[in-house]
Amino acid sequence: MRALRLENNALVLDQSYPLPKERANHTRVQILHAALNRRDDWILQGKYPNIQPSILGSDGCGVVRSKDSADTDQEVILCPSLHWGENSAFQSPSYTILGMPSDGTFADHCLIPNSLIYPKPKHLSSAQAAALPLAGLTAWRALMTRGQLQKGERVLITGIGGGVSLFAFQLALAAEAEVWVTSSSDLKIDQAIQQGARGGVNYTKEKWNRKLPSFNVIIDGAGGDGFGSLIRNLDMGGRLVFYGGTQGFWPKILPQHLFFKQSSILGSTMGSPQEFSLLCQFITKHKIIPIVDSVFPIDKYQAAFGRLNDPNKMGKVILSFC
Amino acid sequence: MRALRLENNALVLDQSYPLPKERANHTRVQILHAALNRRDDWILQGKYPNIQPSILGSDGCGVVRSKDSADTDQEVILCPSLHWGENSAFQSPSYTILGMPSDGTFADHCLIPNSLIYPKPKHLSSAQAAALPLAGLTAWRALMTRGQLQKGERVLITGIGGGVSLFAFQLALAAEAEVWVTSSSDLKIDQAIQQGARGGVNYTKEKWNRKLPSFNVIIDGAGGDGFGSLIRNLDMGGRLVFYGGTQGFWPKILPQHLFFKQSSILGSTMGSPQEFSLLCQFITKHKIIPIVDSVFPIDKYQAAFGRLNDPNKMGKVILSFC
Repeated sequence: MRALRLENNALVLDQSYPLPKERANHTRVQILHAALNRRDDWILQGKYPNIQPSILGSDGCGVVRSKDSADTDQEVILCPSLHWGENSAFQSPSYTILGMPSDGTFADHCLIPNSLIYPKPKHLSSAQAAALPLAGLTAWRALMTRGQLQKGERVLITGIGGGVSLFAFQLALAAEAEVWVTSSSDLKIDQAIQQGARGGVNYTKEKWNRKLPSFNVIIDGAGGDGFGSLIRNLDMGGRLVFYGGTQGFWPKILPQHLFFKQSSILGSTMGSPQEFSLLCQFITKHKIIPIVDSVFPIDKYQAAFGRLNDPNKMGKVILSFC
Repeated sequence: MRALRLENNALVLDQSYPLPKERANHTRVQILHAALNRRDDWILQGKYPNIQPSILGSDGCGVVRSKDSADTDQEVILCPSLHWGENSAFQSPSYTILGMPSDGTFADHCLIPNSLIYPKPKHLSSAQAAALPLAGLTAWRALMTRGQLQKGERVLITGIGGGVSLFAFQLALAAEAEVWVTSSSDLKIDQAIQQGARGGVNYTKEKWNRKLPSFNVIIDGAGGDGFGSLIRNLDMGGRLVFYGGTQGFWPKILPQHLFFKQSSILGSTMGSPQEFSLLCQFITKHKIIPIVDSVFPIDKYQAAFGRLNDPNKMGKVILSFC
């Protein structure tokens, strides 16, 4: 089979990689589409600890072929959270994400625990469904489990255009929240407003946060100095959920403002299979369609990784194995 | 009546202040004992916004005299949270604390809304009961409502010896948590260990936090640079609740450590009357006795305020009107 492997910190497209061997309580899924995540790029850049040779890829939509000709093949998506463990509040010590160290979805076939295989939402194409798992799950946990977003609340999604922030945006709209966005791109803000955002500001402009109202929930993946501005825009009882820190250190923060407001600053990463199931139900109920930026055939993987870092990207970058 | 009034940012003990007038849905409570809080001292230092002439005092235990000679007098304690509002998650805009701007408990009589009057826990003396309200309520909300402390969890209480931290310590022990403490005083750490703490460290020593294990819950009222050390000692899914910031700004913080651990950093201040009721039930059920440092007759109020800032103080400083 074809497999996009990590070897000596570089990507190799192997045309004749051996099929994964059968294993108890696991199923071999034929991958139709897979999505790229920043994680894949960071692994390539050597930013992850204990990088091991493996097939990359955390997101996949594929087909489970029936063994009996009377059964029909089943289209499925894969939950990327391996060994989450028993406690819903946090992942176990043996937790890993599909695709390094275990072989991932950037291959014609992927072997995966049966408990992590879910039916593809029927309203989605295979490419759209492949866009869902990692970013959708991260957004679900951040917004719903940690942020406890309620109908009618006002929510700010920072850095609109990234995978997680776009899902948080779509989930929040479907949950009937009042949604605001930030971006460094006026175009992306305009697009978000056309899609239902109440408003947005360009965070490259001075005192940008003063143009925003106060929020019940803020979802941030950037951190950095901007984080100090965000906390000023928390309403009483507000929840600021952070799932990333691409801009690095938070600035110094004075606790008085925050405890008076009963603020909650909540770290969140990935999510459990149970949360993945809730996400799939919600996506299906509200007919949410993940935003696909572009689809590249697997042999054009270098162009796909190039697109991942293109500032004009809006939505997920997909690899096709069809 | 006697009343310890704030006038031109100074305390005046008035010997013939008029009795508070009767008012619908309010009751006049004869104060037996009242407790000092840092808040009172900060008001004197001009650190509060909109300081107004008033009788100070947020904590009180007293007697409601029966109007009918057939009834017996009732010993009561007062919930210091006025106008909390409908939302349990945060206080309403009209929220105030008893004692500035409304007249407080440093007087022979105090007029208080009927809904904020609770029976004195029977196992407590009047002076012990007066020590409970503000610090106990703050500790309850921080530890139980915000921190969600569970039996068997490991909790760190910083700055043991202060009013809130001592209540958090007692509540956590009664909740069957494993309790650790920090202090600048080895003596206070030893006392805490004698009273049931598993261990403690002196935070004036270098790399003090490395001598501590990781915690499910941390309760902090100091902030400052030490806060950066505390978050390193959060366990997976840990909750760091902060109710103060006497040491000022938190240092710069890297978000990556925190979101991976699914950490929660939770601001907390005061508490609702509903939480006060839960606190009183818990104190009664577990026969918890608030720690009283010293009792001063009301005319020795200057000595009492001096004791409030004495680093050797351990527990609440009480004024007696008996």
